[in-house]
Amino acid sequence: MAAAKAENLTLVVHGPGDLRLENYPIPEPGPNEVLLKMHSVGICGSDVHYWQHGRIGDFIVKKPMVLGHEASGTVVKVGSLVKHLKSGDRVAIEPGALREMDEFCKIGRYNLSPSIFFCATPPDDGNLCQFYKHNADFCYKLPDNVTYEEGALIEPLSVGIHACRRAGITLGNKVLVCGAGPIGLVTLIVAKAMGAGQVLVTDLSASRLSKAKEVGADIILQISKESPKEIASKVEDMLGCKPEATIECTGVESAIQSGIYATRAGGTLVLVGLGSEMTTVPLTHASTREVDIKGVFRYCNTWPMAISMLASKAVNVKPLVTHRFPLEKALEAFETARKGTGLKVMLKCDPNDQNP
Amino acid sequence: MAAAKAENLTLVVHGPGDLRLENYPIPEPGPNEVLLKMHSVGICGSDVHYWQHGRIGDFIVKKPMVLGHEASGTVVKVGSLVKHLKSGDRVAIEPGALREMDEFCKIGRYNLSPSIFFCATPPDDGNLCQFYKHNADFCYKLPDNVTYEEGALIEPLSVGIHACRRAGITLGNKVLVCGAGPIGLVTLIVAKAMGAGQVLVTDLSASRLSKAKEVGADIILQISKESPKEIASKVEDMLGCKPEATIECTGVESAIQSGIYATRAGGTLVLVGLGSEMTTVPLTHASTREVDIKGVFRYCNTWPMAISMLASKAVNVKPLVTHRFPLEKALEAFETARKGTGLKVMLKCDPNDQNP
Amino acid sequence: MAAAKAENLTLVVHGPGDLRLENYPIPEPGPNEVLLKMHSVGICGSDVHYWQHGRIGDFIVKKPMVLGHEASGTVVKVGSLVKHLKSGDRVAIEPGALREMDEFCKIGRYNLSPSIFFCATPPDDGNLCQFYKHNADFCYKLPDNVTYEEGALIEPLSVGIHACRRAGITLGNKVLVCGAGPIGLVTLIVAKAMGAGQVLVTDLSASRLSKAKEVGADIILQISKESPKEIASKVEDMLGCKPEATIECTGVESAIQSGIYATRAGGTLVLVGLGSEMTTVPLTHASTREVDIKGVFRYCNTWPMAISMLASKAVNVKPLVTHRFPLEKALEAFETARKGTGLKVMLKCDPNDQNP
Amino acid sequence: MAAAKAENLTLVVHGPGDLRLENYPIPEPGPNEVLLKMHSVGICGSDVHYWQHGRIGDFIVKKPMVLGHEASGTVVKVGSLVKHLKSGDRVAIEPGALREMDEFCKIGRYNLSPSIFFCATPPDDGNLCQFYKHNADFCYKLPDNVTYEEGALIEPLSVGIHACRRAGITLGNKVLVCGAGPIGLVTLIVAKAMGAGQVLVTDLSASRLSKAKEVGADIILQISKESPKEIASKVEDMLGCKPEATIECTGVESAIQSGIYATRAGGTLVLVGLGSEMTTVPLTHASTREVDIKGVFRYCNTWPMAISMLASKAVNVKPLVTHRFPLEKALEAFETARKGTGLKVMLKCDPNDQNP
Ligand SMILES: NC(=O)c1ccc[n+]([C@@H]2O[C@H](COP(=O)([O-])OP(=O)(O)OC[C@H]3O[C@@H](n4cnc5c(N)ncnc54)[C@H](O)[C@@H]3O)[C@@H](O)[C@H]2O)c1
Ligand SMILES: NC(=O)c1ccc[n+]([C@@H]2O[C@H](COP(=O)([O-])OP(=O)(O)OC[C@H]3O[C@@H](n4cnc5c(N)ncnc54)[C@H](O)[C@@H]3O)[C@@H](O)[C@H]2O)c1
Ligand SMILES: NC(=O)c1ccc[n+]([C@@H]2O[C@H](COP(=O)([O-])OP(=O)(O)OC[C@H]3O[C@@H](n4cnc5c(N)ncnc54)[C@H](O)[C@@H]3O)[C@@H](O)[C@H]2O)c1
Ligand SMILES: NC(=O)c1ccc[n+]([C@@H]2O[C@H](COP(=O)([O-])OP(=O)(O)OC[C@H]3O[C@@H](n4cnc5c(N)ncnc54)[C@H](O)[C@@H]3O)[C@@H](O)[C@H]2O)c1
Ligand SMILES: [Zn+2]
Ligand SMILES: [Zn+2]
Ligand SMILES: [Zn+2]
Ligand SMILES: [Zn+2]
Repeated sequence: MAAAKAENLTLVVHGPGDLRLENYPIPEPGPNEVLLKMHSVGICGSDVHYWQHGRIGDFIVKKPMVLGHEASGTVVKVGSLVKHLKSGDRVAIEPGALREMDEFCKIGRYNLSPSIFFCATPPDDGNLCQFYKHNADFCYKLPDNVTYEEGALIEPLSVGIHACRRAGITLGNKVLVCGAGPIGLVTLIVAKAMGAGQVLVTDLSASRLSKAKEVGADIILQISKESPKEIASKVEDMLGCKPEATIECTGVESAIQSGIYATRAGGTLVLVGLGSEMTTVPLTHASTREVDIKGVFRYCNTWPMAISMLASKAVNVKPLVTHRFPLEKALEAFETARKGTGLKVMLKCDPNDQNP
Repeated sequence: MAAAKAENLTLVVHGPGDLRLENYPIPEPGPNEVLLKMHSVGICGSDVHYWQHGRIGDFIVKKPMVLGHEASGTVVKVGSLVKHLKSGDRVAIEPGALREMDEFCKIGRYNLSPSIFFCATPPDDGNLCQFYKHNADFCYKLPDNVTYEEGALIEPLSVGIHACRRAGITLGNKVLVCGAGPIGLVTLIVAKAMGAGQVLVTDLSASRLSKAKEVGADIILQISKESPKEIASKVEDMLGCKPEATIECTGVESAIQSGIYATRAGGTLVLVGLGSEMTTVPLTHASTREVDIKGVFRYCNTWPMAISMLASKAVNVKPLVTHRFPLEKALEAFETARKGTGLKVMLKCDPNDQNP
Repeated sequence: MAAAKAENLTLVVHGPGDLRLENYPIPEPGPNEVLLKMHSVGICGSDVHYWQHGRIGDFIVKKPMVLGHEASGTVVKVGSLVKHLKSGDRVAIEPGALREMDEFCKIGRYNLSPSIFFCATPPDDGNLCQFYKHNADFCYKLPDNVTYEEGALIEPLSVGIHACRRAGITLGNKVLVCGAGPIGLVTLIVAKAMGAGQVLVTDLSASRLSKAKEVGADIILQISKESPKEIASKVEDMLGCKPEATIECTGVESAIQSGIYATRAGGTLVLVGLGSEMTTVPLTHASTREVDIKGVFRYCNTWPMAISMLASKAVNVKPLVTHRFPLEKALEAFETARKGTGLKVMLKCDPNDQNP
Repeated sequence: MAAAKAENLTLVVHGPGDLRLENYPIPEPGPNEVLLKMHSVGICGSDVHYWQHGRIGDFIVKKPMVLGHEASGTVVKVGSLVKHLKSGDRVAIEPGALREMDEFCKIGRYNLSPSIFFCATPPDDGNLCQFYKHNADFCYKLPDNVTYEEGALIEPLSVGIHACRRAGITLGNKVLVCGAGPIGLVTLIVAKAMGAGQVLVTDLSASRLSKAKEVGADIILQISKESPKEIASKVEDMLGCKPEATIECTGVESAIQSGIYATRAGGTLVLVGLGSEMTTVPLTHASTREVDIKGVFRYCNTWPMAISMLASKAVNVKPLVTHRFPLEKALEAFETARKGTGLKVMLKCDPNDQNP
């Protein structure tokens, strides 16, 4: 793995506030891996968080870690056992790759596998670099009519897919989405694609809500000082009835509470947002109305359907990208992401192709 | 219930080939019923069949029966116990109305209730008339932005909804729809609305297939003399893989066979089309690949979601209507339907409002 | 409906602490009702609560209310429209009876119908009396080999069925049941009947836990001062792994917390116990492990399966009955129930037949 | 892998009618494999079929193949990457072991993976031998209170589990099982363990039906010359209603037909039995009553739950074993199995331990 002169510019976090562009060796793919020339990598809130705080909950950056997990690239080398990919294939990368065939994998919920490899979650390195190797089973060929950036956006889109799937969104559903950050927006987009009748999106920020409108929200509601019960009652008034599903994408306690009050009896509240350790909620109000509360931990089995949706133009995620930077300007890009003025900041890792 | 002079023009089948426009008394709604002034009623293949043959399978026209079950109208009188409707409300009519709270109703599959009332299925009268009373629990208020004709089309649309729901259509699915008659087309429309990636529609008729293209088919395939296995193989080639779901809307044995061969392992074949009593199929091929075979008997719990979809413009069923006739010209309308040149023929029952 | 001298001894709560045995007229069944001669009625915690406090949450006893909702009896008169029952039929009574065919009924979740009639929930009268009329659709014929008391016990058993069904209990599952009151015990019994491999039951009380052992608990755990995390860890040790499902039957905050910590990733926590309005829980711990939290509000569609189970001797609920009193001694019976020394106290309403 | 003198007595089929006991080298486990000293291996109908006919459908014995796939043994050597097993562990073997992480594996339906390795299905060798190596992820540790023979019987039991799971058997269900061969009997056993109220088993053979009674059938029905409709009507009479689920374990066309007629509207017919290529069935009768027809291809995710059930004594499969032979007498054992007088014939591979 020496390759002293190999050019592989890589973005590494060393600890809180300590982000560095370094030159790494180009890795060698194992028998079941592919080596990828990286093209587009989106910056996620968690990347910014590891940079700012050096940790997320119990996941602590103890040794230098490469950031990045919303990514796409081109296959440049193929491991000996890989059959479904070849050099030149454009692929989207699922950042969670199984290490063992455990009980969770066998039942099709591999995202819950405790030993899973996950890009840019300590201690596993991410793919904000120029050359990266990955388990070939978790690289998916992109059709010609899907861009690299769309390929990279499959990662956040997958969170929305998994959330809507767990919410059981179906035809004509009224849906409440709390939060219009990148995750709230992909959730909105997916809910509409699954046939939701009306999606109401809430946020504190007027500009985020106007983005929500742009990507398909039927109704928007700007939150200021209302109590959770007041929000629930406003939502019911605006939709004409309580929503069958609420998808919470803020992690804020009061939003979770409003989600419980707002959801129709027999409906589902999906928790995507991650909040504090303990949360105070009107649990009896949920349970006596059989409002199910379901969490989302990343996703599984989403890349193939996301690619199919993108290829058929059933969803449009392009408006989510508000900024682009070449990999060399990664620190500037992270500064932009940290400020939160835009939505999705894309890093372009291939100096010869900075197209979307 | 006398009302000798009351004007209630009604289309009645008396036996095979014997269709008459007659004057019926205006009925009086019971405590849980509403009286409706009918507006738009679509002609269904089954209406034509009762007229031509006086029966469908074991359902035999033994006494004069009013035809029509794809209908919408306006409430003009309200039974004493009805709370959710009032005079003037524009409503769509679900033609199947429960007579008793049996085991099927209690579990939410009321379409299977053996004692259900169903418009224009012997011995129950339909609603191709000017004034009609119906169980208020099965009349659904239309929002202002949904037309009467859309309201009437909820009936066939419901077959498509129930079929797609039973098929488990989800995001990005590849779907095969056999047959591009009215039922195949609503199924296609619903599959797309539920997020299907690519829908391939087959038919014998080029004109029906071009209508399929018009309402959203991604791929069309005209069938001529191919064997079921050849069709399956063509479908796989055209979609790039086997479809996760096949929805059979012809009732033809060879199409059912091709549906089994075509569907992906672990997928679902939904049978909407009604064929002969005994069918010869490659059942072991289905069962060893765990391709589930599920039938569809009408629908249940579809009107609210259909109204929500129509109101939000998630689906567009308007292109299905190819002909319109005033109720007075019902026989001419049925002749048109019988010839099968168009798709959906609408009868306009209100002489003062012949708009869609 | 006068019947001045008619003998219909009835147990009525007039307000907190005010319980009276009175003589009511014998009611006349409506067209869709049956009149029942009551046989056995169990005392539920909620009956005791209405007597002690005159309310449960928002349900307030504003006018005298007959208690009792765990009941069985014999048909003595049949309404004009009733077809499936006749005089002399022994029946179990489902206390929740639909008043309208609303959206919840149509989808098969009628327990969520806001207008439902429910015995002994204000303002609806219960059936702790000698003669009682009920919606015939919610009276179920008992086979000869099922006793009246078993028939009455179908009510609490139904809570266990609904809870286990919502928990998705299946073959070989490890299950944690918190609480060994009547509800915890029926849940245990049902979980075993559904094929659970090992059920661990917790309680504070040693005597309740030994009853749990008697009716089938594989493992019991007496709770004293352990923290929720400690309990979760003990449960894992004792079962050899985390349970796939936890069914919480205490309503106590710390038990709910231990349920979240204890349940396996991808599993389900069902909340049967009813606690205070706001609850503080480690929600993120549940959601990032996709432990679904589902409530239970009574039950629906349980009587037929419960009767089938009792008839086939798949479950044995008889050991739950610890005390019996004739209806005349109802106040003594309630005193016994209030003290909580036994489990299920049965009132025998038929002076001529006090058998089980 | 030489081991010239190594003693590894192995049962090999060379072609139709050509079955030989040979000495094979003891294999060397790969990094993710374990070497097992085999203990008990049951003879399956398919083993007999490969011996008699040299093929099953498209699976043809083209080179010598070791038979056997219902097996248990003891770990004697552990591959370098194996963590969950160690030498001395008693294990049950799941004969289907994944070769790649394909789409079917990812969604938890790995039995449908087309590249799966499967013991004693050409060209993959089985485990009717003394030493056998297997993918460690598909070897499951047996608790002390589960015997080797119970471990071997998990294979057929798994077919029953998968069938009942796909049938959606739940509390109190009436179930029809067609066929009382080993597969019909394990299906019966599992259905009862899942809470089925009454299971009716049919067969042509009185002796098989009395075995069915012995292992838990509530009702038995000996079939002779009745038409499928007559059988359906007898089943309804005997159960008191139509069964919610029918599980077909014969593969015979007339039994499949009777299964369709017999099953309740809204119920499920599961096809386990494998019949001829084309089958003539009353498909419209199934589809208009929404009787779902679901196949079963082996099983997935059954070993852990089967072990849990066996450990908790929730099921008893021991009565299925009617004959035992030492491996040296394998040909005699196969002759016994071929004659079909008993049920399950066990081969004992460890000369030092011939206990169950
Ligand atoms: N469960 C998972 O697998 C998973 C995956 C990705 C992200 N997440 C979580 O999802 C959440 C959203 O991610 P994001 O990247 O969109 O974050 P973000 O911070 O960009 O967006 C959150 C949005 O919520 C809004 N908000 C805050 N309080 C609100 C309130 N009371 N009501 C309505 N809106 C409110 C904010 O204004 C902001 O626009 C985060 O908590 C993140 O950790 C979870
Ligand atoms: N299950 C239900 O509840 C339900 C409800 C409504 C209609 N139906 C049934 O659905 C079917 C379709 O109804 P429709 O009104 O659209 O009928 P239709 O006759 O208008 O359409 C059927 C279409 O199938 C085409 N077709 C015939 N053979 C074909 C083949 N081998 N391959 C492909 N296409 C072929 C025909 O050209 C025609 O366009 C009918 O069988 C009807 O009885 C069932
Ligand atoms: N959701 C519904 O539809 C429904 C229906 C019936 C009852 N309930 C509720 O179910 C609960 C149980 O009903 P019940 O009649 O069995 O009540 P109960 O009071 O007889 O039993 C509760 C048991 O929980 C035990 N307990 C208390 N704290 C505990 C702890 N920390 N850990 C373990 N055990 C503990 C008590 O010792 C007691 O034995 C009640 O809250 C009741 O309101 C709900
Ligand atoms: N789908 C799968 O994954 C799978 C797995 C194992 C076995 N199988 C199949 O399951 C079937 C049963 O296997 P088995 O080992 O029990 O076979 P078996 O031959 O021992 O048993 C079949 C039984 O069906 C009875 N039978 C025949 N005709 C009947 C009829 N008309 N009505 C009622 N009973 C009738 C026979 O008398 C016999 O007892 C076979 O077809 C086998 O190929 C399928
Ligand atoms: Zn992310
Ligand atoms: Zn129709
Ligand atoms: Zn109660
Ligand atoms: Zn076998």
